[in-house]
Amino acid sequence: MTEPTQAAMQPFTVDIDTATGAMPGARNRLVRRASDLKGYYADGAALERLITEGDDPLHYEVFEVPVPEEAGQLMYCISKLQAGRVGDECFMTKGHYHTVESTAEIYICLQGEGYMLMKTRDGQSSCERMAKGRMVYVPPFWAHRSANTSATEPLVSFCVYPGDAGHNYGDIQTQGFPVRVFDRDGRISVEEC
Amino acid sequence: MTEPTQAAMQPFTVDIDTATGAMPGARNRLVRRASDLKGYYADGAALERLITEGDDPLHYEVFEVPVPEEAGQLMYCISKLQAGRVGDECFMTKGHYHTVESTAEIYICLQGEGYMLMKTRDGQSSCERMAKGRMVYVPPFWAHRSANTSATEPLVSFCVYPGDAGHNYGDIQTQGFPVRVFDRDGRISVEEC
Repeated sequence: MTEPTQAAMQPFTVDIDTATGAMPGARNRLVRRASDLKGYYADGAALERLITEGDDPLHYEVFEVPVPEEAGQLMYCISKLQAGRVGDECFMTKGHYHTVESTAEIYICLQGEGYMLMKTRDGQSSCERMAKGRMVYVPPFWAHRSANTSATEPLVSFCVYPGDAGHNYGDIQTQGFPVRVFDRDGRISVEEC
Repeated sequence: MTEPTQAAMQPFTVDIDTATGAMPGARNRLVRRASDLKGYYADGAALERLITEGDDPLHYEVFEVPVPEEAGQLMYCISKLQAGRVGDECFMTKGHYHTVESTAEIYICLQGEGYMLMKTRDGQSSCERMAKGRMVYVPPFWAHRSANTSATEPLVSFCVYPGDAGHNYGDIQTQGFPVRVFDRDGRISVEEC
């Protein structure tokens, strides 16, 4: 099968410290602070205190060297989620479906520990433990959010997804996930909402 | 944008030793020995001696936990290319275009050192150094082959490509690449053919 040749893009390399996720050549695509997560945590008052009295701490960052957001390309990034609690709830990402829902995503945890929470529109739910060296395969049609269960260490993952996948945050913002991850006096607890 | 929900596949995890590329839960999808590389090296007689007198040594292996080979999925694998020489030429993979040529591939080198050789149908050529922690982005429409320049250590990479990419080996088998990688008495040399 021969297609028209359209090799307009040049190969490139990016150095990644696979022990820490540091990617010096990347730019910071996305920064989320506590104030960006309003409405996401069970204890809204605790989040407000964190924002007003806790100096609106950094929640997570996404680092990447951009490639065209097109079918056939592979988007990749380092996701770095800080350790912290909102009340008893572990810091987490907003979570999203892909806009093109038939697209998968691969996470490889490089540092830290946590959970990948996943759910489908037809009511399925899944929760996979993340730890250094563990790859989580998020199949097509599964929304996903990560939570950092460490008290001190960031949860750092290398992520890959198809170039045309896109992000749909709105559905998760309104519906949430079926479970939340808490730190109950040092004991991590995944609890149904 | 909402699509029909077809979440038939369940999430899963795979443990990877990011220092060595060991993936204990994987199956060995592909094994290539010296005898599988007939016609690929500059010194065919040296390859024949390796096969007949050298016990047909292992060249490379690909390990994976399979997912459906469909658009939207992400194929991933560990590629492990042994250290060795055929005459003066460094052990290398066959190399391939993707069958769907508009698809990219990501390599992350976890162990060892070498080169990623790349070329396009319209005559472009590129050669990127591979080393631990270095990611090589192979854009759409670029054929790619790796060569191991270490004298002793395997070249181990984690690879990701779109589920519908496919492999086209035939074109490389007949045309080769514009450069070859040699070990000239311990000095690595990338030479035009």
